[in-house]
Amino acid sequence: MSGGASTATSVSDVAVVLLSGGMDSCVTVAVAAKSHQLALLHLDYGQRTRRRERRAFVEIADHFRVPSDRRLIVEADFLGRIGASALTDASIPVPKSPGSGIPITYVPFRNAHLLSLGVSWAEVLGASAVFLGVVEDDSSGYPDCTRAFCEAFAQAAKLGTRAESSVEIQTPVIHNTKWEIVTLGTELGAPLHLTWSCYADEDAACGRCDSCRLRLDAFSRAGVRDPAPYRVHGT
Amino acid sequence: MSGGASTATSVSDVAVVLLSGGMDSCVTVAVAAKSHQLALLHLDYGQRTRRRERRAFVEIADHFRVPSDRRLIVEADFLGRIGASALTDASIPVPKSPGSGIPITYVPFRNAHLLSLGVSWAEVLGASAVFLGVVEDDSSGYPDCTRAFCEAFAQAAKLGTRAESSVEIQTPVIHNTKWEIVTLGTELGAPLHLTWSCYADEDAACGRCDSCRLRLDAFSRAGVRDPAPYRVHGT
Repeated sequence: MSGGASTATSVSDVAVVLLSGGMDSCVTVAVAAKSHQLALLHLDYGQRTRRRERRAFVEIADHFRVPSDRRLIVEADFLGRIGASALTDASIPVPKSPGSGIPITYVPFRNAHLLSLGVSWAEVLGASAVFLGVVEDDSSGYPDCTRAFCEAFAQAAKLGTRAESSVEIQTPVIHNTKWEIVTLGTELGAPLHLTWSCYADEDAACGRCDSCRLRLDAFSRAGVRDPAPYRVHGT
Repeated sequence: MSGGASTATSVSDVAVVLLSGGMDSCVTVAVAAKSHQLALLHLDYGQRTRRRERRAFVEIADHFRVPSDRRLIVEADFLGRIGASALTDASIPVPKSPGSGIPITYVPFRNAHLLSLGVSWAEVLGASAVFLGVVEDDSSGYPDCTRAFCEAFAQAAKLGTRAESSVEIQTPVIHNTKWEIVTLGTELGAPLHLTWSCYADEDAACGRCDSCRLRLDAFSRAGVRDPAPYRVHGT
């Protein structure tokens, strides 16, 4: 696994990038685009914000002019069925204020599914890398957002794919803080105005949920105005 | 990861067992049943034999009296869409004779998806183990069927789940040959008559495809009559 920006590769190499439609994954796409042709993969696992995240995925893919055969939306409602998560189970309310420990919005082992999808598609495409916009420090203690997990998974991917595949797992923002990601995205010209972070499934963000607060705080610390539309609060 | 039969555990522990409906996974269920309560998970990924394999799954689950809330069939057609495999792409014919190298029936990185599902569900259920009936020697060179891959994935599962989860990956038949699996299954009273190995999606096996030939050869070496129904050939 490489935790930094991609190493010397031909721009003709293809990379699969997991794109949720959020800020971290959008900036990860911008990093990958510097060295690779893009193949963008989106997971719809029955999360509350599926409609809005899918729109963000399509708009970001359009922005980067990714052709249709390099876009893949996977509908994986089984994660919702396996569930026990506030993001997928409509009967569990999403907490409005920060708590302690692993939050109820946790989908067990979700990044393993994302990475498995990325690696499978990378093998089919002959892609050399899978990029995941995971962030260790800002990830509320999710165990599948750690560098240790990503490194172990990278080893599994190396051993579990064809010898000639050599699919590398890249996590270029894993050690960044949210405000550093804002700064990096701004430097790279990433379309942050198209990203979606809010826990609500609306056209404009609520500005009040945990995720909106983290995002607004990050823009504030970076000294950048958040270009995304807000319903109530702005920067 | 434990490669042998399960170690000392209370029979009240729950284990998730991946059950395709084939012989290896059925015997793995019989091994797991000695030490755990069963939770059976089946993946329908658009394979040609989906209908028949699902029937085998249900009949084996019935045999082991697994309650309905401990059965999970996941429809994951995305593997078919990612595809490039004869098992999922109807335009690619399944080879009738053994070839060399990794066969066209390979679904890239499939066992990572199976194990990810197993681990996610195990976390939700509070299960202590995920059993996978992978067999290294008989697996036609699939890289995701090796002990090395399973060990690396077990490490990723350990690091990528809640600290209190401690979900162990168990692969009790990984070092067995097919005929040893027949012998073990017979000793354990595994319902081998309910299993399905054939590449065709029929009620009775063809007895001619690669998978049937391997199976019939295994029963022959074990000195056991194959109790499954065959269309053309029997033991």
